[in-house]
Amino acid sequence: MLLEKINSPRDLKKLDQNELILLAREIREVLLRKLSEKGGHFGSNFGMVEATIALHYIFDSPNDKIVFDVSHQSYCHKILTGRKEAFIQEEHYGEVTGYTCPDESEHDLFNIGHTSTSISLACGLAKARDLTGGVENIIAVIGDGALSGGEALEGLDYAYELHSNLIIVINDNGMSIADNHGGLYQNLKMLRDTKGMAECNLFRALGFDYLFVEDGNDLGQLVQAFEKVKNSNHPFVVHIVTCKGKGYPVAEKNPEDWHWYPPFDMETGIKRARPYEERYDATTCDFLLRKIKEDRSVVALVAAVPLTIGFTREKRIAAGEQFVDVGIAEEHAVAMAAGIARRGGKPIFTTDASFFQRVYDQISQEICINRLPVTLLVRNASIFGMNDMTHLGIFDIPLLSNIPNLVYLAPTNKQEYLAMLEWSVEQREYPVAIRIPRYKVITVKEPVDKEYGSLNKYKIVKQGEDIAVIALGDFYQLGEEVVEEVRKVIGIQATLINPRYITGVDHEILNGLLVNHKMVITLEDGILNGGFGEKISAFYGNKKMRVINYGLKKEFVDRYRVDELMCANRLTSRQIVEDIKYTFGNMRDV
Amino acid sequence: MLLEKINSPRDLKKLDQNELILLAREIREVLLRKLSEKGGHFGSNFGMVEATIALHYIFDSPNDKIVFDVSHQSYCHKILTGRKEAFIQEEHYGEVTGYTCPDESEHDLFNIGHTSTSISLACGLAKARDLTGGVENIIAVIGDGALSGGEALEGLDYAYELHSNLIIVINDNGMSIADNHGGLYQNLKMLRDTKGMAECNLFRALGFDYLFVEDGNDLGQLVQAFEKVKNSNHPFVVHIVTCKGKGYPVAEKNPEDWHWYPPFDMETGIKRARPYEERYDATTCDFLLRKIKEDRSVVALVAAVPLTIGFTREKRIAAGEQFVDVGIAEEHAVAMAAGIARRGGKPIFTTDASFFQRVYDQISQEICINRLPVTLLVRNASIFGMNDMTHLGIFDIPLLSNIPNLVYLAPTNKQEYLAMLEWSVEQREYPVAIRIPRYKVITVKEPVDKEYGSLNKYKIVKQGEDIAVIALGDFYQLGEEVVEEVRKVIGIQATLINPRYITGVDHEILNGLLVNHKMVITLEDGILNGGFGEKISAFYGNKKMRVINYGLKKEFVDRYRVDELMCANRLTSRQIVEDIKYTFGNMRDV
Repeated sequence: MLLEKINSPRDLKKLDQNELILLAREIREVLLRKLSEKGGHFGSNFGMVEATIALHYIFDSPNDKIVFDVSHQSYCHKILTGRKEAFIQEEHYGEVTGYTCPDESEHDLFNIGHTSTSISLACGLAKARDLTGGVENIIAVIGDGALSGGEALEGLDYAYELHSNLIIVINDNGMSIADNHGGLYQNLKMLRDTKGMAECNLFRALGFDYLFVEDGNDLGQLVQAFEKVKNSNHPFVVHIVTCKGKGYPVAEKNPEDWHWYPPFDMETGIKRARPYEERYDATTCDFLLRKIKEDRSVVALVAAVPLTIGFTREKRIAAGEQFVDVGIAEEHAVAMAAGIARRGGKPIFTTDASFFQRVYDQISQEICINRLPVTLLVRNASIFGMNDMTHLGIFDIPLLSNIPNLVYLAPTNKQEYLAMLEWSVEQREYPVAIRIPRYKVITVKEPVDKEYGSLNKYKIVKQGEDIAVIALGDFYQLGEEVVEEVRKVIGIQATLINPRYITGVDHEILNGLLVNHKMVITLEDGILNGGFGEKISAFYGNKKMRVINYGLKKEFVDRYRVDELMCANRLTSRQIVEDIKYTFGNMRDV
Repeated sequence: MLLEKINSPRDLKKLDQNELILLAREIREVLLRKLSEKGGHFGSNFGMVEATIALHYIFDSPNDKIVFDVSHQSYCHKILTGRKEAFIQEEHYGEVTGYTCPDESEHDLFNIGHTSTSISLACGLAKARDLTGGVENIIAVIGDGALSGGEALEGLDYAYELHSNLIIVINDNGMSIADNHGGLYQNLKMLRDTKGMAECNLFRALGFDYLFVEDGNDLGQLVQAFEKVKNSNHPFVVHIVTCKGKGYPVAEKNPEDWHWYPPFDMETGIKRARPYEERYDATTCDFLLRKIKEDRSVVALVAAVPLTIGFTREKRIAAGEQFVDVGIAEEHAVAMAAGIARRGGKPIFTTDASFFQRVYDQISQEICINRLPVTLLVRNASIFGMNDMTHLGIFDIPLLSNIPNLVYLAPTNKQEYLAMLEWSVEQREYPVAIRIPRYKVITVKEPVDKEYGSLNKYKIVKQGEDIAVIALGDFYQLGEEVVEEVRKVIGIQATLINPRYITGVDHEILNGLLVNHKMVITLEDGILNGGFGEKISAFYGNKKMRVINYGLKKEFVDRYRVDELMCANRLTSRQIVEDIKYTFGNMRDV
């Protein structure tokens, strides 16, 4: 195998063009084997094999600096920069992250998992270079899907001002995660159709020099193009057309499904059987489709991730015009939802907690200052959600719950979730966010409340004494465990409370607890800082109640095991009851 | 006066073209008089008089819907839609806000003060219209400066997908707040130079139909253009060229100064004398200029608001390439700063607290996950800052202080501010944000610490007993007052602490207080929810310390008086000491 000899980009430069082609084939085999075992971002990585080889062949990393965007298309880059074992040898599979990571290699510039960042980051690298007399090439490699993000567009606008070396490689595979959306894609198409010759060229309009590469999976064309732009003294866009999933026919045929793909059979591409698990994605999608059929004014919005709430192509067609995928453009989605609500519509925007980080201002200004009845569904907001450092879902409570006028709800089971969703979509008074549970789909038989318009009314599920457990959302089931454990270990029937509202404190219930409780425990599935429990602590600050807040430490954790992280944060029911026993014991001694 | 007869856009439609011209003149006189008395956004409103008249002449508001962006260019719109008294009669001056406001008029769609929102909001209005069979025109009026913002660019990209009526009026006056920045402006210039005929047209590239209006202060041209696009069945860009400050020669000559202008003498344009007040803007600018001269790797970045940290044109020239104004593009600025830091540079990005709301994700992902030494200067973060509902500076602590790895500092005087700034720029370990004081420029003689690398070390300024006052940043001086008042009223020498670090808790000092203190008071100049004080409450939750947090209620307040808002939140030293006395008294009784 040629790959055996490649330990750094330097080794690559010794190969001739035929060997490069052979190497591309070997890398695809390696990727195929690993991804069939472990799953991962399939489509873009298969599409980028030749371009990555050509980049490292022509440029001189790490002196020349390549920034990947989204950096989940950096597998081939990792293979070529000294990390091939993590792709070849099963025992090393876990040793690299799914994104670029400076701790792994000097060839990686940033640890970045969100899209649309590369151009601005590259502008910064270029600026610092220019001020201090550096001469290296700065290259941003950005997928066409990531181009529609505001940050990428801001960067694309600014880059012209550098008037110096900056090479933006646009990996145009004709789609985002799902379809591309927006006018810029018809321009990309026009450029593809005219082999880059169309007069009306978005990149030229923004002041770039421009080069078109018709076959971005042809090493010869790529090498030639990168040779041409290397050491350019002004910003350049190199528009390369690649095939998503290139080299694996099943993936080429279904690029949306194969954007990210779980473990599969290498021969057939069929996903390995996994135990069936009910998921909230389908529940949400079913609810939205029903609403859409009943009411023309209901609009379901997503930003490039329709599948994450179950909107397959089939269901998107069923929803018709009432389903809107704006592409990677969360800011636009939230503002558009505000506009829809202002005109009497019922917008529901769903994305992952981690991507809500991009729209604080839009939620605050467009939605909350204007008190518009928009429903925001916050997905993967949980320790049980994604565990990549760049996609954590544990920061949403401080982010969202401190915005005035927003009602942030935390359902504890499926029935409560659906009731809150129904209420939220139909009411016209409040902006509402709902934290979709992530722990498990829990079904309950007891009736749940239908009305959530009387804000900040907590629910006492079990009345006890001495100790009260306020268990929010996804940690409600942990609360049940703690109450049970307290009974067994300490012999006290504790009170169990489902607070339901993240955004407010129930003064009446909390004051009521003062009568026959000495201690309150809060549980939340997210970081403690700026979160829910601290508000309870503050409420009792000048009263004679002891409060302990349980939740996560403020830190960027990476690829953790849930049980270990729970344990490290003293979040098992055994640990919690140990603490309660200790504190409660001390109090009785006083 | 013609204006006497204009009480709604309906009245406008009865006028002939000559009368419209006369009306424009009258409106400018009215604006001039009011702005000379009260100050306000001068340039864009003077430039937009004819366009606003023409819009209301051709379209049928409020059925047709006009969204202004930034809505500070809506003065003329307010005059024409039943609110002229607020511009004509001094006793009514205070009755309208500086932005569109649905509470004031059915002609105002949104209460919005941040830029770059109109296109997405308009897309939402159009979407809801299309789904429910509406037929009205939807018009977004956006300044060229606002176009560079990511949200506007996302909207501009998406709009094509509507395939229905949406009219985007681009008010191109050739500048943002200061100069425009980015490649799109050379395209606007090319379009101006070719009277809209250039083949390479950004808007056409994004799928828009396009119409150019050479003189956007000519009513005839405007009326004709709006007639043409009215009831269009697809998205249209109408590119109008206006003159910022039109009709007032002094303003036309100095459009940057006259973007917003304080009260002035109508004859000369000279600002009314105001008592001299030392400001942190100049302090910051002087510091940055000195650093820039000493060190090529220092880069000062702003997003369209250079003057707010004292960077006049003269000082920008002095800073040269080391001063970067990215235009309205905060996301790009933050990511670019990350890139600069990664390449060894020393970036300092400054903007208002309210605009930091746009960059949570960039601060979290690009800067903090990557632990890059970027300095963020947070301006106007205070009850003493801007008091428009859309520009409040009281939400930054929950927003920023709960991001892992970020060190958020709160200096209490000028010397401490400069020491923190110096430390931050020179260290390479932490992302740092500094909350620039806003209360007053306080100068102290005692030496201040130079080193802030040992995180979360609070400073005991006055050692006392029983009661400790932890007074953060801008409220430190309030803390001094409270301590003094406690001594007088209760006869106790309280402990006074300057916590300095917003992002962490000093366990050693807080544990130390347990020895001879019964009560802790926290003071912070921002909302309580998710803020600093709640962390202190949580720390003491299971200990025998009483804690009361002082700060602001979570709400969008508007054009408040500081003294009244302080009082309403029990933030005067008299009120605080009343509370202390009450709680402390009760504790002694136990």
